[in-house]
Amino acid sequence: MNIQVLLTGNELMSGHTVDSNSATIAMKLAAGGFKLSRKVTLGDDYSLLVSELAHLSSNCDVLIVNGGLGPTIDDLTAQALSETSGQALEENATALAHLTDWCDQRKYPLNKANLKQTILPSGAQVIPNPVGSAVGFHLDFQDCLIICTPGVPSELTMMLDQSIVALISQRFPEHKPGSTIRFQTFGVGESNLQQLINNQYSDWPQEVELGFRAGMPLLEIKLTIADKQHKDIQQQCYQRVRQMIGDYIVGEESTTLAEAVVHLLQTKKQTISTAESCTGGQIAAAITQVPGASSVFEAGFVTYSNAMKQQLLGVDDQILTQYGAVSEQTVKCMALGAMEQTHADYAIAVSGIAGPDGGTKDKPVGTVWLAWGSKNTIKTREMHFNLGRQVFQSWATAMALDLLRRELLSIEAAPRYFKSLRR
Amino acid sequence: MNIQVLLTGNELMSGHTVDSNSATIAMKLAAGGFKLSRKVTLGDDYSLLVSELAHLSSNCDVLIVNGGLGPTIDDLTAQALSETSGQALEENATALAHLTDWCDQRKYPLNKANLKQTILPSGAQVIPNPVGSAVGFHLDFQDCLIICTPGVPSELTMMLDQSIVALISQRFPEHKPGSTIRFQTFGVGESNLQQLINNQYSDWPQEVELGFRAGMPLLEIKLTIADKQHKDIQQQCYQRVRQMIGDYIVGEESTTLAEAVVHLLQTKKQTISTAESCTGGQIAAAITQVPGASSVFEAGFVTYSNAMKQQLLGVDDQILTQYGAVSEQTVKCMALGAMEQTHADYAIAVSGIAGPDGGTKDKPVGTVWLAWGSKNTIKTREMHFNLGRQVFQSWATAMALDLLRRELLSIEAAPRYFKSLRR
Repeated sequence: MNIQVLLTGNELMSGHTVDSNSATIAMKLAAGGFKLSRKVTLGDDYSLLVSELAHLSSNCDVLIVNGGLGPTIDDLTAQALSETSGQALEENATALAHLTDWCDQRKYPLNKANLKQTILPSGAQVIPNPVGSAVGFHLDFQDCLIICTPGVPSELTMMLDQSIVALISQRFPEHKPGSTIRFQTFGVGESNLQQLINNQYSDWPQEVELGFRAGMPLLEIKLTIADKQHKDIQQQCYQRVRQMIGDYIVGEESTTLAEAVVHLLQTKKQTISTAESCTGGQIAAAITQVPGASSVFEAGFVTYSNAMKQQLLGVDDQILTQYGAVSEQTVKCMALGAMEQTHADYAIAVSGIAGPDGGTKDKPVGTVWLAWGSKNTIKTREMHFNLGRQVFQSWATAMALDLLRRELLSIEAAPRYFKSLRR
Repeated sequence: MNIQVLLTGNELMSGHTVDSNSATIAMKLAAGGFKLSRKVTLGDDYSLLVSELAHLSSNCDVLIVNGGLGPTIDDLTAQALSETSGQALEENATALAHLTDWCDQRKYPLNKANLKQTILPSGAQVIPNPVGSAVGFHLDFQDCLIICTPGVPSELTMMLDQSIVALISQRFPEHKPGSTIRFQTFGVGESNLQQLINNQYSDWPQEVELGFRAGMPLLEIKLTIADKQHKDIQQQCYQRVRQMIGDYIVGEESTTLAEAVVHLLQTKKQTISTAESCTGGQIAAAITQVPGASSVFEAGFVTYSNAMKQQLLGVDDQILTQYGAVSEQTVKCMALGAMEQTHADYAIAVSGIAGPDGGTKDKPVGTVWLAWGSKNTIKTREMHFNLGRQVFQSWATAMALDLLRRELLSIEAAPRYFKSLRR
């Protein structure tokens, strides 16, 4: 079964609007077990629309057209579909009744521009619009169910929920929906994991499709089956992948590192403070973006200068002089100082050289020291990410959160971040 | 001249990823004076890719393919293009040298999966990737310049900036690029500005196209001319707009609020500290993302609990009891405490209720108090943004930075954020 989408609008071509409507269509259809196979986006160009409608409708079972139903001259969908299908434009009584009601309820005058929205190709069936003035409609042409929808996101969403998914399901009762298991990992490279599976899991079942999405810094992994009758095989694959890289799995669906950390701390009823130099508050910001973070977050310190590390976190002057601000000794003292000051159970501390300036031969730009843990379990690690200031900061933030996540889960094995995952 | 885009990736078809790459491509090309005429999106399906590549490349002058260059089996671009064009796959020496360097720098082993990224169609010319392992490449086929780019947004952006726009310009020297003046504003609404221009500037010249992009929280404004001979008229428009809304202009091109603040402080050779409650470190993080921020940033405090506000910032117990943590008095004390503790010249302090919990009848979710300024000029303001936790945090962060920006510029007039801009 082949479902395609045609999106229209100059704003989608100029880059001024990021298209989220097609994602909404895909997600709503997926909930009904349907997949999209192609999306085409065009500006408001009449002749391009006419030929694309003909081309697409001859190549799929369902074509969802989004946009171009409004009252203005650049709204061309009904007219273009009329020309493509050879169905003359005519006033649609259901559309007119809807528009009259809609205007009455709002005490708007029914003007000529609005009336344009009631002129549809002959034979079009109206799809109700509970919120807007323009109805949707569908029409069969060359064995394709063509469904025309409004570009306003809230109106589209309601129509999908209330009418369109049901309409497609009724038309294709023989269709068997699939299913996807989706989870987030940190520290695993796409190519490493693919290699590991090739080596250790050469009998990967063909019913399960393996997909990746590099979210930077997280890598999303998806295991998709086309038919729900293969759920057991999908579960087996998931368990095998968990055995291979379980320590690197941050959580199900779209769980973030900070969410994983906050939830683990909530479960343990314990608290955390942060002491950041080069990440400049990003770790605190990530944690406090999670709803309910206030139950686990004590305080955050952003101590850029040595003077502030001494004054606010009690880092010894001698340690800073002897080892420098970017050192194992300093981050350890920063973490201990943060716990001391705030009575938090755990702390994360980071000090590094984000660049572009400030590097030396011994400690080049990209060097970072991390400390994490509780008073008695504090651990440290040195890393290098010479990838530009902003990427450096986001990787250091992610790694610090992941190291604490592992500590909270009592994962003993040291992570082999982005190294080959031998077993 | 006809430029089209082919986007690939199952994540784009499932709706789990909203495609922003094609908007980036459109915006970067627009800066070089080029427009897109069609976008097609497909999942990772080999035979669909092969036939779409053939179809699109026979219908346009430039085809930009995005995605499918990674190391895994679902990355199919090079292979599909090889089949479409009849150019056999072969190891590309430039791509191999890049990958070897890339792995060496990171001390990663060069594995078989990675090596897949060096196998390109014969005749392909490499496009350098300054940050990632996979190079881009271009190839001519049936009079179409086919440009293959990575799906990772940061890598795509760099390639567009450093290579691709120039490549297209060189190929089509007869194309007349226009020119755009682009600048960032905070606190001005699109429709307000449009109304203001309609009222006060009814003779707006038709040679200059006015464009907006709502960047949330910034609004980008663009003044575009199709032909560079109209530069004077464009400059006149810019000056007129500056007269109307100058106080709301954050900076040229893609200047952020934090960049504006850091540069103003650098010019004045003065320093800042932050004291944040509900924004959880986002203001500190925004400031320290700016290269060179260490010369102006003293320290940041993230004080969630009342106890931390007392202990770390010296906020009086009585003030917290009498007025509450979200109050004018408390943010004023937080700002003064941050300056006291760190000897910074300026401070920003924020306390509010980000939600979803914690609201009361008097102080509902979305209430926030801001304080900003130097010891002698400290000002305060109450705002309400009941827009969900994350939007609340980013608006409070932006507004705090903008209020300090105005203070540093000695702008006397109080901002009329998002109100109608009467004059």
